[in-house]
Amino acid sequence: MSEVIRLEAIQELLPSLDVVGLMEEAFVAYSEGRSVVPPVGEMIFEDPPGEVHIKYGYIRGGDSYVVKIASGFYDNTKLGLPSSQGLVLLFSQRTGELEAVLLDEGLLTDVRTAAAGAVAAKHLGPERVDCIGVLGAGTQGRLQLEHLRRVTPCRKAKVWSRGTKWVEGYLERFDGSDIEVEVAATAAEVAETCSLIVTTTPSHKPLLTEGHIRPGTHITTVGSDTEEKIELDPTILARADRVVVDSLSQSESRGEVFRAVSSGALSRESVVELGAVIGGRAVGRENDEQVTVCDLTGVAVQDLMIASGVVAASRRAREEAGP
Amino acid sequence: MSEVIRLEAIQELLPSLDVVGLMEEAFVAYSEGRSVVPPVGEMIFEDPPGEVHIKYGYIRGGDSYVVKIASGFYDNTKLGLPSSQGLVLLFSQRTGELEAVLLDEGLLTDVRTAAAGAVAAKHLGPERVDCIGVLGAGTQGRLQLEHLRRVTPCRKAKVWSRGTKWVEGYLERFDGSDIEVEVAATAAEVAETCSLIVTTTPSHKPLLTEGHIRPGTHITTVGSDTEEKIELDPTILARADRVVVDSLSQSESRGEVFRAVSSGALSRESVVELGAVIGGRAVGRENDEQVTVCDLTGVAVQDLMIASGVVAASRRAREEAGP
Repeated sequence: MSEVIRLEAIQELLPSLDVVGLMEEAFVAYSEGRSVVPPVGEMIFEDPPGEVHIKYGYIRGGDSYVVKIASGFYDNTKLGLPSSQGLVLLFSQRTGELEAVLLDEGLLTDVRTAAAGAVAAKHLGPERVDCIGVLGAGTQGRLQLEHLRRVTPCRKAKVWSRGTKWVEGYLERFDGSDIEVEVAATAAEVAETCSLIVTTTPSHKPLLTEGHIRPGTHITTVGSDTEEKIELDPTILARADRVVVDSLSQSESRGEVFRAVSSGALSRESVVELGAVIGGRAVGRENDEQVTVCDLTGVAVQDLMIASGVVAASRRAREEAGP
Repeated sequence: MSEVIRLEAIQELLPSLDVVGLMEEAFVAYSEGRSVVPPVGEMIFEDPPGEVHIKYGYIRGGDSYVVKIASGFYDNTKLGLPSSQGLVLLFSQRTGELEAVLLDEGLLTDVRTAAAGAVAAKHLGPERVDCIGVLGAGTQGRLQLEHLRRVTPCRKAKVWSRGTKWVEGYLERFDGSDIEVEVAATAAEVAETCSLIVTTTPSHKPLLTEGHIRPGTHITTVGSDTEEKIELDPTILARADRVVVDSLSQSESRGEVFRAVSSGALSRESVVELGAVIGGRAVGRENDEQVTVCDLTGVAVQDLMIASGVVAASRRAREEAGP
């Protein structure tokens, strides 16, 4: 019998999951070619403007396949609704039966993206991090910082955002936590003081250029998920000692790597996949002087792993509760 | 708040819907270019063998968009499970919010396909039908006959199936109903005695050829939904006075028309869409001597219309029940 898991239940179950470990597994399976991830389905709406993406896939020999529907309707904020909407579905890979409907309202995408940022930092970040830099003070900027706690002992952060209102909310969120957050006046100030940076904005213009980046810095970018969006000037990727992506095939049409390759600043051949770095089949950071960039556009195996994790946790919780 | 509607509730609500009218609306909207129907998403599984299709779309200016996940895992019968699995999701076209999860286990696809068969018969069938012929005695063969009741006064039917066990179940289903069902020994016998024929088999070889078809016959084919499947010899489509499809674009890659055009027997230019016939923008049957064929491969607007109909009926039922 299929299970319907609502947002509140997902929120309760998530803390029990090793989301960083799940994302490592996802990226390794993906990069080893053990996953089947067809092209993303897309639907565009004009009035009001909106976009829907359907991601689906499975790991060969696994238990389940996943279908995720995620939308962005940007006028929703006028109605007091979150612009991101969606749900995740798990089905049996053996019978096609629906296993679970996860009414996550976009939460699992947010969390798996943040957990992927932690994976990138774990495998590519410099050994010593004095300060974590975050560009963008929205949900993803917050979740990235919360998940980086799991992979670095650093508890100092600097946040920059175009919207001062967002920044206030951000500071409130970490008020009383063990992370000390300061506000940076500019994106450049973040780069000047932080050696581990995450960019989470929907910017259409580069926020950082090569001159801002100090040796030893690692930057993870998660904001640019279309061909128009860009957070890093291509000169940064051109100068980086290592450029890593979650998906080589997706980087051909979206994200920072797409932009840098299109502009001629970066050679596609030099780019490697995160799962290959984790699995030891590609070289990541070699020393603490190198600059590394990891561009994440999100793959369906991440959705599969986190949704499977939630469903397994839900079953365990039910078993423990007894009949 | 999104609503989860389970199979039993859908079964209770369906009889209150004018599914034939809903399908007419769907086909007209589709053929008038008022719908957005991206290419079908597909995922193939090898062990055990299975296939998943994701159909999605919307009608411009409507309330909702639909995503349907439908799978066929053909070893399921060994496990005592239906090979068809799936569900239908409705979302708001204005905010992206999930409106309803319809856990229909494939029922809505079966019903909308049968209702489409009734639409085809209504608009293309001969005026006088002495006997309804059905090839294939599975669920779809049964539903087609049940839905044809709504568009023809004929209450005599002849069924043929490769599996005698299926035929027994079929006869039992109509035992005591107002439809008198006889068994045909061959598919040819069905064509010899029936002027309204529906083919619902997963055949990979033609079941009928041109010599079998009497003047005035209308044939609706719903079985062939891949490029391998075929129920009618291309000579039938070549000889037909009118060949109609639900979707011209889908007929380029699947179904009877695809096969007949590929073999050179049929010219693509002569084929028209069912929605254009209903809307009066294309000519259908002109007299009772003509042979007509309607090849249905299924479009997402049908899923949208039937799912919207069920959700609306569910809301009405709740309102009538009161607070």
